[in-house]
Amino acid sequence: MAETLTGGSWIAGHSSRDGQATFYAVNPRTGTTGGVPFVNATAADVDRAVQAAQVAYAELRSYPAARLAALLDTIAAEIEALGDRLLATADEETGLGLPRLTGERGRTTGQLRKFAALLREGSYVEAIIDTAQPERQPAPRPSIRRMLFPIGPVAVFAASNFPLAFSVAGGDTASALAAGCPVILKAHPGHPTTSELVALAVNRAVTAQGFPAGTFSLIQGDQVEVGQMLVRHSGVAAVGFTGSLRAGRAIFDTAAARPVPIPVYAEMGSINPVVILPGAIAARGDALAEGLAASVTLGTGQFCTNPGLVFVVEGDSTRQFIESVTAKMQAAQPGVLLNPQIQRGLVNAVAGTLKHPRVAALAGGTALDGPACGYAHTVLLTDSAAFRADEQLQAEHFGPVTLFVACASADDLRATLETLHGNLTATVHADDSELDEAAAIYTILREKVGRLIWNGFPTGVEVVYAMQHGGPYPATTAPATTSVGMTAIKRFMRPVAFQNMPDALLPDALKDTNPLGIWRTVDERLTKDALTA
Amino acid sequence: MAETLTGGSWIAGHSSRDGQATFYAVNPRTGTTGGVPFVNATAADVDRAVQAAQVAYAELRSYPAARLAALLDTIAAEIEALGDRLLATADEETGLGLPRLTGERGRTTGQLRKFAALLREGSYVEAIIDTAQPERQPAPRPSIRRMLFPIGPVAVFAASNFPLAFSVAGGDTASALAAGCPVILKAHPGHPTTSELVALAVNRAVTAQGFPAGTFSLIQGDQVEVGQMLVRHSGVAAVGFTGSLRAGRAIFDTAAARPVPIPVYAEMGSINPVVILPGAIAARGDALAEGLAASVTLGTGQFCTNPGLVFVVEGDSTRQFIESVTAKMQAAQPGVLLNPQIQRGLVNAVAGTLKHPRVAALAGGTALDGPACGYAHTVLLTDSAAFRADEQLQAEHFGPVTLFVACASADDLRATLETLHGNLTATVHADDSELDEAAAIYTILREKVGRLIWNGFPTGVEVVYAMQHGGPYPATTAPATTSVGMTAIKRFMRPVAFQNMPDALLPDALKDTNPLGIWRTVDERLTKDALTA
Repeated sequence: MAETLTGGSWIAGHSSRDGQATFYAVNPRTGTTGGVPFVNATAADVDRAVQAAQVAYAELRSYPAARLAALLDTIAAEIEALGDRLLATADEETGLGLPRLTGERGRTTGQLRKFAALLREGSYVEAIIDTAQPERQPAPRPSIRRMLFPIGPVAVFAASNFPLAFSVAGGDTASALAAGCPVILKAHPGHPTTSELVALAVNRAVTAQGFPAGTFSLIQGDQVEVGQMLVRHSGVAAVGFTGSLRAGRAIFDTAAARPVPIPVYAEMGSINPVVILPGAIAARGDALAEGLAASVTLGTGQFCTNPGLVFVVEGDSTRQFIESVTAKMQAAQPGVLLNPQIQRGLVNAVAGTLKHPRVAALAGGTALDGPACGYAHTVLLTDSAAFRADEQLQAEHFGPVTLFVACASADDLRATLETLHGNLTATVHADDSELDEAAAIYTILREKVGRLIWNGFPTGVEVVYAMQHGGPYPATTAPATTSVGMTAIKRFMRPVAFQNMPDALLPDALKDTNPLGIWRTVDERLTKDALTA
Repeated sequence: MAETLTGGSWIAGHSSRDGQATFYAVNPRTGTTGGVPFVNATAADVDRAVQAAQVAYAELRSYPAARLAALLDTIAAEIEALGDRLLATADEETGLGLPRLTGERGRTTGQLRKFAALLREGSYVEAIIDTAQPERQPAPRPSIRRMLFPIGPVAVFAASNFPLAFSVAGGDTASALAAGCPVILKAHPGHPTTSELVALAVNRAVTAQGFPAGTFSLIQGDQVEVGQMLVRHSGVAAVGFTGSLRAGRAIFDTAAARPVPIPVYAEMGSINPVVILPGAIAARGDALAEGLAASVTLGTGQFCTNPGLVFVVEGDSTRQFIESVTAKMQAAQPGVLLNPQIQRGLVNAVAGTLKHPRVAALAGGTALDGPACGYAHTVLLTDSAAFRADEQLQAEHFGPVTLFVACASADDLRATLETLHGNLTATVHADDSELDEAAAIYTILREKVGRLIWNGFPTGVEVVYAMQHGGPYPATTAPATTSVGMTAIKRFMRPVAFQNMPDALLPDALKDTNPLGIWRTVDERLTKDALTA
């Protein structure tokens, strides 16, 4: 496809360039701007997008799951049809490189198709039926049947660090559309061209499948006002967000202050503690150092699951291990950060941490010279007492940076872990002889995170049914939910119960004959059977 | 049991009467106060209760489900062991009458036992397992296993109108304890003696089952500060609440403004619209009038599911129907309201509504004379245009009051229903010849409520697996959850995933052999089977 980009927002299938202020995509490798000027969406754009989403919702809420599945499959195919142009554009705007972006595209289309499969299987509506007991005393028990329905138009805020998988047609969009909710997508200003390309692919799928145009809108902008407007709009029923703690909290606060508050599913900062026990260093220190250095620097460290904090127990082997990690990180070729804002943020965050008298930089700690958004691979070191005494040492350094925390003993290690804030993940590396110690540590860490990892690294988030990509605040604003994996669809659904409803008025999922052939809990028992008369 | 009441709060098994200000129980039938003086809990009481809950949580979070089930069963037995004294006390403090309170006690103990059964069955942890794919290219897929865990200490605010089923050992407490979360219960000042009696029963169960004393604490108080303190406490992980919109929203706002926000599951006001189509009036007008009058006045109208709003289509039969309902409500013996605060609130609410020039009182509209907290059975009438034009007409009248909204036509009726705010329930009465019209109406109402009822009345909330007692704001602050029914437990749980974890470190629910014999989703398929090697 060689269609012309408009630089505008796409409101229910039409490009809008009514706004005044413009911004440009920046190539983080060269620092140069170029391409189409992108126009900040206006208040009227936002309002039209939400109104069109409400109109679309009145249709989508009654679509069978198979029809929603067809839309997701078609979006995946249309993204693939964008071909190399999409990858080249995303690479120019993010510097993430073609191999990574090729993988990310596969993840994005795979995720859309996996939600389509979930819809076709159909049991995700969680149908529960309690049959009537007309003879019950003192009063008959009515029939109660319950299932999940979509909640309404969803506003999604795209992330900068996954220009495909957490952006325009990423996990939030896929799960909201899967639920039957129209999406108003606030694009990330870091990759506006990529965003418009994917929006055009989504628009084509919406048209091809005969969905209402308001099923999807794209809002461009590099100013916070347009996002706040979206969150405040009375027609928006929920918000999905991936990004910084500051931006996520601002959106959460706005949503909570509405006359009618709405849920905000914000996935924000995380420093992903890794605990490395002495036995693991003794058994496989080299491989561990190699793996840790690779995980910290992967994607220039710009993952929500980047291991930004490593707990070790003091000792000679530990010192050698830290030296080895440091050497490997220094030897590795630095990548480029996504954009100048992220570079500035990282410079400030590390400088702030280094002001602490008991934090030392073993490597890096500064931006790299040159036109690119570079930052030196950075290893910081502190001790457990300093860490426990200053919550600021739990601030995220979004980039190729990790902070070692040296603990005096196993007891000191566990006491220090108790002070951790919420995170997406926590990891323990241990030898098989350290299972008891690992168990005690996991009991502490389980309260702090959404995912616990054994002898691995937190980067790499599988899109599977069991994935939990979430965690206590400040990792997210909604720890009971996930933004990756198939249960992410639950964020955008709401149960409704039907009392004594005639079969003709019930949705298919709740009818006596179980025409969809789904799993249902009938009178407290899971079954695919029809109801018996 | 004839134990002496202390009038204090019960903090982790010990009575505390450190506070200064006291208050008394009021008999709503006589207006007289008496019995023990109750002492407002202090900030130190709240702090000790939460700290004890945190200590208890460190134990409870690792208890097998069967042990939590034993606690719930024992609480039920201990409540029954309180015998007639509990019912007599609750009746003195609420005026609800022994038959109703006997039923409510059965509901309360039945609910505790039903959660115990849910725990013993065990599948409520929603175990999902995606097995490893070591051969996958370009990288192996790790094993990911996920289940639900308790979230931590829960603060529960008791309601006034169900002194047993939504109070000290009511649905919120039962579901939080079932989840493995200690409970700090803010008692309702309307029935402090009943609250202390039930707290003593819970304490006995906690002791008998060898649970930590901090598993349960009771906070007494008639001032809002103590509740706000509880919601602000950093050791509280979630809040359950049943009560007024004003109080619920205040708690929600406090929780959202915390440094670490926490979820508030507040079940607040609801006016429970009932739509009565002409065919239903023609087919069974008398029975309908009888049923509606009974539902409005049941429990002196003090139900969250009280039918406070009735939509009808103008016509001669409709006018006769309204007259019939009015006559039946006037003929019925008025009950007594729960307390003077509720009486004052109702007087003000109805007076406010009657200021509207297009609202007429067909019956009642005033408090009853005498020492009791009485209020006349009240029927109000307005028209659809007035209703649509003034959101104030959707304010709740908590008591034996209903507002008829006369619509000009079926189209006018549907347009008016579109303007409804969130509610717990909505009901349609129709003749079998009106199924198409009813379907169109349900499509509108489904967006507004948690439960849809056919040819019935909203009062009477079954404690079953399929029950959805919730709904869009302002009915609740968390429309995706329910406060009644077995899925209420999900409010107090949070998923955690385990990556590549050795079987020895996995919780039983996720082990290869499925030692608990529960339903699990293994590689996208529901099964009770063990994993195959």
